[in-house]
Amino acid sequence: TNPIFTGLPTTIFEVMSRLAVETGAINLGQGFPDVDGPEEIRRAAADALMAGPNQYPSMMGIPELRRAVAESNRRFHGLDVDWQSEVMVTSGATEAICDSILGLVSPGDEVVLIEPLYDCYLPIVRQAGGIPKLVRIAPPTWTIDPDQLAAAFSDRTKAIVINTPMNPAGKVFTEAELQLIADLCQKHDAYVIADEVYEHLVYDGRRHLSPMALPGMRERVVRIGSAGKTFSLTAWKIGYVTAPPHLLAPIAKVHQFVTFTTPPDLQAAVARGLRLGDDYYEGFAAGLAAKRDRLSAGLADLGFEVLPSAGTYFVTTDVGPLGIADDREACLTMTREAGVAAVPVSAFYASDPPTNYIRFCFCKRDEVLDEALERLGRWL
Amino acid sequence: TNPIFTGLPTTIFEVMSRLAVETGAINLGQGFPDVDGPEEIRRAAADALMAGPNQYPSMMGIPELRRAVAESNRRFHGLDVDWQSEVMVTSGATEAICDSILGLVSPGDEVVLIEPLYDCYLPIVRQAGGIPKLVRIAPPTWTIDPDQLAAAFSDRTKAIVINTPMNPAGKVFTEAELQLIADLCQKHDAYVIADEVYEHLVYDGRRHLSPMALPGMRERVVRIGSAGKTFSLTAWKIGYVTAPPHLLAPIAKVHQFVTFTTPPDLQAAVARGLRLGDDYYEGFAAGLAAKRDRLSAGLADLGFEVLPSAGTYFVTTDVGPLGIADDREACLTMTREAGVAAVPVSAFYASDPPTNYIRFCFCKRDEVLDEALERLGRWL
Ligand SMILES: CSCCC(=O)C(=O)O
Ligand SMILES: CSCCC(=O)C(=O)O
Repeated sequence: TNPIFTGLPTTIFEVMSRLAVETGAINLGQGFPDVDGPEEIRRAAADALMAGPNQYPSMMGIPELRRAVAESNRRFHGLDVDWQSEVMVTSGATEAICDSILGLVSPGDEVVLIEPLYDCYLPIVRQAGGIPKLVRIAPPTWTIDPDQLAAAFSDRTKAIVINTPMNPAGKVFTEAELQLIADLCQKHDAYVIADEVYEHLVYDGRRHLSPMALPGMRERVVRIGSAGKTFSLTAWKIGYVTAPPHLLAPIAKVHQFVTFTTPPDLQAAVARGLRLGDDYYEGFAAGLAAKRDRLSAGLADLGFEVLPSAGTYFVTTDVGPLGIADDREACLTMTREAGVAAVPVSAFYASDPPTNYIRFCFCKRDEVLDEALERLGRWL
Repeated sequence: TNPIFTGLPTTIFEVMSRLAVETGAINLGQGFPDVDGPEEIRRAAADALMAGPNQYPSMMGIPELRRAVAESNRRFHGLDVDWQSEVMVTSGATEAICDSILGLVSPGDEVVLIEPLYDCYLPIVRQAGGIPKLVRIAPPTWTIDPDQLAAAFSDRTKAIVINTPMNPAGKVFTEAELQLIADLCQKHDAYVIADEVYEHLVYDGRRHLSPMALPGMRERVVRIGSAGKTFSLTAWKIGYVTAPPHLLAPIAKVHQFVTFTTPPDLQAAVARGLRLGDDYYEGFAAGLAAKRDRLSAGLADLGFEVLPSAGTYFVTTDVGPLGIADDREACLTMTREAGVAAVPVSAFYASDPPTNYIRFCFCKRDEVLDEALERLGRWL
């Protein structure tokens, strides 16, 4: 069996969700909302399912959704995108990341990755034959050190994978950080694979900036978006890739042999979602920001050091109040004993992780957040 | 960019479907029915979409579908399968094939493939670092030569990928052929990756036999099934893998980083489909057999040499009556000029293909088949 995958642990998100189900814990581990997204989107999908046809659409995605993705690139990022040569639909952002890495990276290419990192990046880079170059950013500020980042690049660098807004850090990359990345990519002729699944989950009046929008970067960036995150329908597994034609072409060649295509009924409904008015997007972010504040305040009251979160579904805290030094042990024990599941931040590191931070997901109903806080309070 | 994928042509199925749409041709190329599967299955999916939750299910698939897959293994193949350790749901059989090959094959492993072959096998074997060992079977009988097959195996053989019933040949592997494969796998300690997506599309009282059902093979076979093919819902992209735990474990580790999970609403509906009575399965196969006969007779009347088809969606014929020696040219010209699309069989070969056969898809309404035959007759 393949040594790249064999022996890897089951992804922490699945592990904690399984344990939460088994123990009846409130699941603030894996990132998914407990209220489904807009009924009109779900209704559109249900109607399309009944009307049909339920047969293979184009492997690139249905034109309606590809057009909507192109339009949303203009609307939210000022980007001029040709839907036919620059947009592809995938079976979730995870597939988009897999296709992008396998499409662009050849054996011996170096790929810069920033720790903490989402756990699919590293094995797929390895499967591509890429050599990971890890750069670490540290809590509580999660700032990128320019010298460290520059040192990770070389003439063998093919790409950097970034995640902004960033899971689990709740960090939204600043313009200065993105400019630094852009400069390095231009200097070393490298690409950016930008996992922007949380692009609409940005709070407090900040704005998400895509690296594709920076001068000179239009031809170097692969942008990945997620309907699941944008419309609170994580099970739908509709992702989309925006990339210049010379990058999309090899990525599409991977896609055609990895999943080939994606349910068109869900695609049609997502196209409708992308065209929802600003009120949807603003209300969505405001609602999540309020939940972040509710959970953060409650955790702080319980004695946790709560790190600021400018975006995503997540806040991170220290493990201090739990009285268990190791974050993984702390999460397992908290799930079993307090009835509240969270995710250890150490799971986002390839090796030598910090073990004193844990991640809570706040995209849950207020009463669920309150009940979780109450359970934690009782247990502590 | 990755040389394994870069420069590969767009899959022939997409190419011919795009051309059919552009030219208004009747599409007997890519394999998909023009009537959607059971309304009760689609209704179950639509209801689940509205009821929710539309959030990440278990990465292995929803228990309901995994149980239904395990039961269908018993019902149709007499196999005793544990749903928890031996069944996984994927985003289509294409993903299942990708996961299985990437999970089991390591760099330097040899993988036996039988030409004509489905076009995703070879690039994924190469991506895994595997060394393809091609064995060819030839029309009109598509018989496996035991000596040739044995010669393709060595002590470095990790797996053989087979497709039974076989696209495009319409061949259903015989018990003797499967026993030969089983003997070789046992002798060389190799696995079978069995693409059985057409398992329920078998005609004339023949029965599909899974290599997993052969003595000694229970622990060596990865079986892949497809809801799209079984329920005429090719757009749903729900596949399932049945494998012994020691093989499913590494395959699941690939899956978790390739798509991670699959829409649960569609999964629930497929579970219902797998429990439909024998009348569904028998009526489905009988209906397809009648379509095969209708199209085959019409093509024979037009002067084509129509090869027998014991299963799948497809019949193959010679190119003779078209008066164009090259099958690809013949298909392109026939699509444009006659308004009927088919697929060149040469696309199913890695190199040096035969160029005198084409494949027609017969899973279309009778009036569509008749109209296609009429168009062809007019053109010839
Ligand atoms: C593969 S689980 C997805 C949820 C998620 O993104 C997370 O919890 O970090
Ligand atoms: C990837 S297209 C799928 C259809 C098919 O299996 C075929 O036409 O052979």
